[in-house]
Amino acid sequence: MVKIKEFQEILKKKKIDFAIFCNIDFVRFDCDMAYFSGYGGIGALILPKDKKPFLIVSRDGAAKAKKLKIKSYVLPKKKRLFEFIKEKVRHSKVKSRKIGVNKEEFTLLLKDYLKKNFKKSRLMDLREELYKLREIKTKKEIEIIKKGCKISDEILRMCFKDFKKFKTEAEVKAFLEYETKKRNCELSFPTIVASGKNSSEVHHDTSDEKIKRGFCVIDFGIRYKNYCTDTTRTVYVGKPTKNDAEIYNKLLRVQKKAIIDVKVGEECKNLNESVKRSLGSNAKNFIHGLGHGIGVKIHELPNLTEKSSDKFENGQILTIEPGIYFKNFGIRIEDDILILDNRVFVLTKTRKELILV
Amino acid sequence: MVKIKEFQEILKKKKIDFAIFCNIDFVRFDCDMAYFSGYGGIGALILPKDKKPFLIVSRDGAAKAKKLKIKSYVLPKKKRLFEFIKEKVRHSKVKSRKIGVNKEEFTLLLKDYLKKNFKKSRLMDLREELYKLREIKTKKEIEIIKKGCKISDEILRMCFKDFKKFKTEAEVKAFLEYETKKRNCELSFPTIVASGKNSSEVHHDTSDEKIKRGFCVIDFGIRYKNYCTDTTRTVYVGKPTKNDAEIYNKLLRVQKKAIIDVKVGEECKNLNESVKRSLGSNAKNFIHGLGHGIGVKIHELPNLTEKSSDKFENGQILTIEPGIYFKNFGIRIEDDILILDNRVFVLTKTRKELILV
Repeated sequence: MVKIKEFQEILKKKKIDFAIFCNIDFVRFDCDMAYFSGYGGIGALILPKDKKPFLIVSRDGAAKAKKLKIKSYVLPKKKRLFEFIKEKVRHSKVKSRKIGVNKEEFTLLLKDYLKKNFKKSRLMDLREELYKLREIKTKKEIEIIKKGCKISDEILRMCFKDFKKFKTEAEVKAFLEYETKKRNCELSFPTIVASGKNSSEVHHDTSDEKIKRGFCVIDFGIRYKNYCTDTTRTVYVGKPTKNDAEIYNKLLRVQKKAIIDVKVGEECKNLNESVKRSLGSNAKNFIHGLGHGIGVKIHELPNLTEKSSDKFENGQILTIEPGIYFKNFGIRIEDDILILDNRVFVLTKTRKELILV
Repeated sequence: MVKIKEFQEILKKKKIDFAIFCNIDFVRFDCDMAYFSGYGGIGALILPKDKKPFLIVSRDGAAKAKKLKIKSYVLPKKKRLFEFIKEKVRHSKVKSRKIGVNKEEFTLLLKDYLKKNFKKSRLMDLREELYKLREIKTKKEIEIIKKGCKISDEILRMCFKDFKKFKTEAEVKAFLEYETKKRNCELSFPTIVASGKNSSEVHHDTSDEKIKRGFCVIDFGIRYKNYCTDTTRTVYVGKPTKNDAEIYNKLLRVQKKAIIDVKVGEECKNLNESVKRSLGSNAKNFIHGLGHGIGVKIHELPNLTEKSSDKFENGQILTIEPGIYFKNFGIRIEDDILILDNRVFVLTKTRKELILV
């Protein structure tokens, strides 16, 4: 259970009686429910401003919920979820004048269900507060993400060691994801493997195309205990020309310098600017943000974009991922870093010197 | 492009000027956008009641969108998605008094963005109409799902052939998903591997637990060209007792009979009832629905539940999946079937006789 008290302070300040995080689709994952309770499956988390939070879980989720440090009720067979929520809210003597939700996750259908059972309640959006709260990691979260990065490093190393055996982009993706699942982890996002000209697309849609000579961008992240990692390495298939090696090494120098230049209290957009300066004539080829926070969501605060008003702070875990894209190829190098005690720690340790495969 | 004209008839009837399906999260997948256009990534599909539909896609989606048979616009770099949608809607001379959405997929945040740009518009929910539309498959959809089932069968066969090599549930899951990704397919849902006592849970949360002796339920589905498959087989680790073999064979007989008993025009709930009768004393152990339609979503119409008012119709593709659950084990057998020309075709062909592994 993470930051329940801090969140309850927010609820009190905003006079929100309780917050609800909810998931009715077994293919989805509710990030806030997972964040606060450890449970991300079908059900709902009720988080009152001044009482103990509790979960309502489907029968299937009962076994998992039991292992968590939070009270949980199993939805009875013939009961509708929101009717049961209403019962349990009343039973716990929790008021419901104002109910907090995360508008980014809550669907219009869930709102209908909620309003049907809490007719007089006002819905309040807590999206920004939740992003701010999740931005600064606790010790426990830091330990989890560190471990996640270690697992991800191990998988990437295995992948590069014997890269020649892969014939298609899909095979590389399948391998990385197989090693992830074998370790009982999930994915942060669909793995990107972009070889040859495909590497010029930032988020290439990996397919069964043959792996081509030249740069191959691999962007891969695992979800370990609900927390995401996010690493990109660009390897080279074949023998790079002098030009290719030079442009790669230029980006690598810029990426390493960017990590060193992360300073608590500084504005993230300034680092973005300084990376552009370092890239010189290639600044125009750097077409995305420099990085983003990671956590239970793959994109969290801070944002390292041009227009960001975020600052570097202790407790943040974020990516540093400059990339440059040309007509026929692209390169991106991405690490996950932790800011703690005014220092920067690189959590992803897979080698960054150009790997020839 | 599937059923655009049929959908436009619905829009006309309901006087909805256009429908919008939208996705701003690159980890998600919009089922309706994928259904109508083939594109499921970041962007929006605008489907006017009497003009040609068009896509707005992120720069990353441009390459994929280009290959589709639908007009697409790439979101310019410094443009907000909904501002650009508004521009393009106006430019296409599409009115916007009433806008249709799918409430099950549309978040409160998307609604805010939409309302900001279409201030006077009324939002209309098309969820039920979309479910009805997607329920009956076209020839093209049938061919895709048939192929998906064939691929899934191939993967399951490989899995059972050499099952002894797996030590944990997570390893079986990893293998199935690896073979899926290698074939450039995605997953319909997180694979369930439930051995020993875990098989008594319907949707067991697969972990790195060792595979135990006894029944092992494997529920696995792939997403091929945006369409889901869904198969369950229960294998036996070790040598089954006479009792175990008998209870399995009883369920298998019931499952086979249920498939034969599917009749166009009949109510689905009646089949559910007749399965309960066939199960006799084990009816109480059958604790979930008999099946559900599949398509771009893993759960579509018809619903084969107690209270369903759905009927069997030509063009449906659905699962038949009776299961019985006891304190220490569970069994489920699930096939995907197609109803066409008043006949039933079983699309999943992995053997159903108890497999000893």
